[in-house]
Amino acid sequence: MGAPTYELFYWPSIQGRGELVRLALEAAGAPYIDVARLPRQGGGGVAAMLALMNDGAAGALPFAPPFLRVGRLVLAQTANILFYLGPRLGLAPKAEAGRLVANQLQLTIADLVAEAHDTHHPVSPYEYYEDQRNEALRRAAAFGQKRLPKFLGYFERVLDRNGGRWLVGRALSYVDLSAFQVIEGLSYAFPRRMRRLGPSIPKLLALRERVAARPRLAAYLASERRVPFSEEGVFRHYPELDAKR
Amino acid sequence: MGAPTYELFYWPSIQGRGELVRLALEAAGAPYIDVARLPRQGGGGVAAMLALMNDGAAGALPFAPPFLRVGRLVLAQTANILFYLGPRLGLAPKAEAGRLVANQLQLTIADLVAEAHDTHHPVSPYEYYEDQRNEALRRAAAFGQKRLPKFLGYFERVLDRNGGRWLVGRALSYVDLSAFQVIEGLSYAFPRRMRRLGPSIPKLLALRERVAARPRLAAYLASERRVPFSEEGVFRHYPELDAKR
Repeated sequence: MGAPTYELFYWPSIQGRGELVRLALEAAGAPYIDVARLPRQGGGGVAAMLALMNDGAAGALPFAPPFLRVGRLVLAQTANILFYLGPRLGLAPKAEAGRLVANQLQLTIADLVAEAHDTHHPVSPYEYYEDQRNEALRRAAAFGQKRLPKFLGYFERVLDRNGGRWLVGRALSYVDLSAFQVIEGLSYAFPRRMRRLGPSIPKLLALRERVAARPRLAAYLASERRVPFSEEGVFRHYPELDAKR
Repeated sequence: MGAPTYELFYWPSIQGRGELVRLALEAAGAPYIDVARLPRQGGGGVAAMLALMNDGAAGALPFAPPFLRVGRLVLAQTANILFYLGPRLGLAPKAEAGRLVANQLQLTIADLVAEAHDTHHPVSPYEYYEDQRNEALRRAAAFGQKRLPKFLGYFERVLDRNGGRWLVGRALSYVDLSAFQVIEGLSYAFPRRMRRLGPSIPKLLALRERVAARPRLAAYLASERRVPFSEEGVFRHYPELDAKR
């Protein structure tokens, strides 16, 4: 019996939340198909993704991408997908207590990601940024001044208490990969704010380098499989939403 | 060996996210202590909660309440706590696939709860509603017109596809209890909007009645242990944020 081939379904033009799953698959060297990025002719594309989302399979319907298909199983919600993949990819503790700690931290990362998203969409995901820019200015200021330091200070402390090298257990986990991605995204979106916060989060910044330097990750990040950051994803660089200087 | 006594830690004056955990403990008739609602003299109160939050124990620090202590284990993040409790309280499928479905749905409920919260706090949780009321009016309109129907329509469909009686598997689960709470909260906060949406979600409304009629739940809801809804919790009734009529 060989390893299963995972099928990842996510919007093809952005990193978004799908990237947190992709990083785990890439870091483990797991065989996977990025279905919505394949041509429609071969059964890929956004149409294939939406068809599965509206029809489902075993399990419940996904509310939104990303979702993962493994044989007959279809799993949605990023943290849920990672909870499933973690031990199978060697990217989570195997014992229950460790898995629960990983899940707790991953859900806190999910909260941070959602709040980062809402800095540019504080009114509605269905309206353009330009049409909610005034609200975004206020929300981004509150995020940058209060929420972001609180979240990052929290993860710095968790990392420190766990020995300083990894967020959970004694080896790289999917939580470290997600933390890497979030720091990358925040640094893209809020470069001035992150430069200012840098001195208070030395261990997190070292974790980011440690993850990026892993051979599989380094190869992935340099490849065309890594979708670039852009102003269509979760982390967007609108200079007016960043710290003043 | 008797059943463990669970210690729940949550803000004592609001239902908030802690209520999703409390409903599971109550529905199962599990022995638990609501630590922050006990007098300070007996080792309770908010001070005891904050002390544990800043110190932690085995596992990682909580980022925020609610959290649960079971012996040496301290678990945070509502969906994570419920994932742990579910099979132990007889409120989740025992097989992995069913647990993952429950977790997926619970995380989607968490997303809905967060969006409901942000209708009255679209700028910052650290500022008063009155100081972000203009932004709240816009966000609440978008929520009520687009997001809420999308979320509720989704859960109605999931319920329908699962036979119409329970959201996961063939028996009451913690997901049903959380769905009950969310519908209660939404009906408190947005009575006009929910009356209008009612005809499109008959199965969810029947689920709410089915849950409320369970003897342990009915007794709990009529007791003083049930904190009332108020304008300090997640679900707040500000008539100006509801549908016009």
